[in-house]
Amino acid sequence: MAEKAAPSPLARTVLQQCVGARLQVEPAGESSEGRWVEIHRGMVIYVCFFKGATEEILPKMVSALLSLRACESDSGRLVSVLDLPGSILLVPQATLGGKTKGCGMQYHGNIGKEDGLRLYSHLVTLCREGLRDGAAAGSGAGPERDGARVMVQHGTYGNRQVLKLDTNGPHTHLLEF
Amino acid sequence: MAEKAAPSPLARTVLQQCVGARLQVEPAGESSEGRWVEIHRGMVIYVCFFKGATEEILPKMVSALLSLRACESDSGRLVSVLDLPGSILLVPQATLGGKTKGCGMQYHGNIGKEDGLRLYSHLVTLCREGLRDGAAAGSGAGPERDGARVMVQHGTYGNRQVLKLDTNGPHTHLLEF
Repeated sequence: MAEKAAPSPLARTVLQQCVGARLQVEPAGESSEGRWVEIHRGMVIYVCFFKGATEEILPKMVSALLSLRACESDSGRLVSVLDLPGSILLVPQATLGGKTKGCGMQYHGNIGKEDGLRLYSHLVTLCREGLRDGAAAGSGAGPERDGARVMVQHGTYGNRQVLKLDTNGPHTHLLEF
Repeated sequence: MAEKAAPSPLARTVLQQCVGARLQVEPAGESSEGRWVEIHRGMVIYVCFFKGATEEILPKMVSALLSLRACESDSGRLVSVLDLPGSILLVPQATLGGKTKGCGMQYHGNIGKEDGLRLYSHLVTLCREGLRDGAAAGSGAGPERDGARVMVQHGTYGNRQVLKLDTNGPHTHLLEF
């Protein structure tokens, strides 16, 4: 296929494979360390939507993210997170949409908060369905790994994303849609 | 400034602020857990060079990376890693140069290994000089934070980058050059 000038993307994602990741979904209080979600082996996906993005792009995004051979299997072969099978941690990350201006970042291209929240919530739902259905041929209760159910976890849109990441080599990928 | 079709980048970086990060720079042996480098507060920078990249782009890259207001100060203000002052962990990350083809990734645009190693090594040197000089107005011994000298650490080009990352919100940024 001939190279053509890429149009501005509607969504930007950064993927990192992990052996474990923890994300704070409720800020710490005076007497608590907040609420955290956690995944074991799988993939962390940072997500940012741009102006003009609609629900239309979501099925294509989910299909690409779930089927991309970006995870190392036990034998070192690259497989999709579906085939691993692994879990997914979705992290809203508006900073990914920034453009440098001088020493600062500007976010004029980012989607508005309400639209972004709606798309992000729908993305989480579709990833859950995809992960469940994609390995449905296996056990009836859904895919498992090392005796634990694989799952989709996610951060709270608009919040600070306090993240702790443990990798065996993140193999960072950039995917735009 | 009018929007123009962006030319293909010569280098791609992804930045994440961190409160701590550890990177394995020598693989674990049978009786050791390998050799690790570590930074405390500062920035992790994943780096990939494309074909056509030369030493010419390095000064501009270093200047942008060191002066970008991408780190939160104690008061929550966004400051550069120089002004924080914070440390830097450079991570070679060839996967960042990938393009999807079907469910796989292709790396036809990535720079060759020898050229990449040379550019990466030079980038490390320039970041070290920049971090030292940028805060030279302070103490004679170089910038410090919480009593510890800020520093540039880096992964070994061509190796697996086993990374453990601890953040207070990574604020992931994409910068291309």
